[in-house]
Amino acid sequence: MLMIIKLGGSVITDKNKYMTADKKNIARLAKEIAEARKKGKFDLIIVHGAGSFGHMPVKKHGIKEGVYNEKQRIGFADTNYSCSILSQHVVSALLKEEIPAIVVTPLTVLDHSDKKLKKFDTDVISALLKAGYVPVMRGDVVLDDVRGGSISSGDEQVPYLAKELHAQRVVYGVDVDGVFTADPKTNKKAKLIPLITKGNIGKVLHSLEEAKTHDVTGGMKGKINELLHNAVVPIHIVNARKPNYLKKMLMGDEVTHTKISLN
Amino acid sequence: MLMIIKLGGSVITDKNKYMTADKKNIARLAKEIAEARKKGKFDLIIVHGAGSFGHMPVKKHGIKEGVYNEKQRIGFADTNYSCSILSQHVVSALLKEEIPAIVVTPLTVLDHSDKKLKKFDTDVISALLKAGYVPVMRGDVVLDDVRGGSISSGDEQVPYLAKELHAQRVVYGVDVDGVFTADPKTNKKAKLIPLITKGNIGKVLHSLEEAKTHDVTGGMKGKINELLHNAVVPIHIVNARKPNYLKKMLMGDEVTHTKISLN
Repeated sequence: MLMIIKLGGSVITDKNKYMTADKKNIARLAKEIAEARKKGKFDLIIVHGAGSFGHMPVKKHGIKEGVYNEKQRIGFADTNYSCSILSQHVVSALLKEEIPAIVVTPLTVLDHSDKKLKKFDTDVISALLKAGYVPVMRGDVVLDDVRGGSISSGDEQVPYLAKELHAQRVVYGVDVDGVFTADPKTNKKAKLIPLITKGNIGKVLHSLEEAKTHDVTGGMKGKINELLHNAVVPIHIVNARKPNYLKKMLMGDEVTHTKISLN
Repeated sequence: MLMIIKLGGSVITDKNKYMTADKKNIARLAKEIAEARKKGKFDLIIVHGAGSFGHMPVKKHGIKEGVYNEKQRIGFADTNYSCSILSQHVVSALLKEEIPAIVVTPLTVLDHSDKKLKKFDTDVISALLKAGYVPVMRGDVVLDDVRGGSISSGDEQVPYLAKELHAQRVVYGVDVDGVFTADPKTNKKAKLIPLITKGNIGKVLHSLEEAKTHDVTGGMKGKINELLHNAVVPIHIVNARKPNYLKKMLMGDEVTHTKISLN
């Protein structure tokens, strides 16, 4: 059984502080994943967001719309470097919990064309899984044959990986309890939507405002839009800031969250 | 024009101290490379050795001969993690000198079979070069279909890259002035061999003793053995511990070194 976990940038970094990892939360999540993995014996891919290691460098270097000159190339390389440091925080915590995690840098396996996925070669991921490792991917810059470079979010990668590698369970760890009718951080009337299906997806998308953070990849609305194209298995969106929520989700226990089932 | 630089582990780390980067030397070399690159306008690949970030973890985890169980898989992942930290020291210094360096992790592009190169896909390296970046590879662990995992040295990667991508100049930065008749660090009678050709290669290999360090990949003898199979252009071995030697070599200036020309 293959499980894919997305750890949101908002869960493993302080999104408002430049290149600041939330080491405490990362360590707790690594422990929860290790505990669930010991009981469940599943194959695992972890994809993490870039948080303040990605969105801020992208804005600082002005490369959100493309990479066209040497200065922007240095910005692109600097963003990739910055994201790789966040991966190391994640991998370091996973290794401490005896999870054999191996980073696969997005630009070495996938390409964009005008900000959209053009090619995603999952062979390396498959080979690592087969050999018993836990591949770690992330939101990062990738080459783009129209714009020079663009941003591949973890939210873009997860549905593709799930489809291609036949994942049986996909869990998104975010900093809220799931998908709400409005932004729960700014709107007290926001209500959790426990189940999203083809029946209510239109209404959900309509009501969603874009998250008001430094997220250059579209927040919750972006997540769901990506799922529209690639979702093959139910996706569970769960609060990974609250202790044991992710672990329970991974173990199939009951926990407050949003399930998205579009089949 | 494509140039490939190998930075030896002995040049960028303290080979006898666990995971200790020689940041000062790395910074100086990054500056020398940037200066040469500004004048020469060449495409560039940098491959660095793992030094004390690779050889020591490999020994510590006992994975030199293969990876066969979960404990060794964690050792493999830990070694990969350790090597990636050294890459970050290198990339950080290169970025400071405005070189748009991008790490390509060996295990994402190459595989071994019983410790030997089985497949090396250079497409990502080519794409990065074409887009104006400086790919950075390194000695690191890779998957091996016979032994589970094994070690790919920078010395294995460089000749292959040079052949495949038609490099016009290949420079190895090491911690001695070139290839000697014996180990110059322990034998005062050791003499520099300025030119190695098909005519004297047999004699040279015979006289070379293996370097007495923690190098799990064979030292100078290993370097030359790899060249025997793949060398297509002359290789220049130069002292990268001495200021400006590497820079002069990159710019084609006269400097004491060993040239290996086996065609």
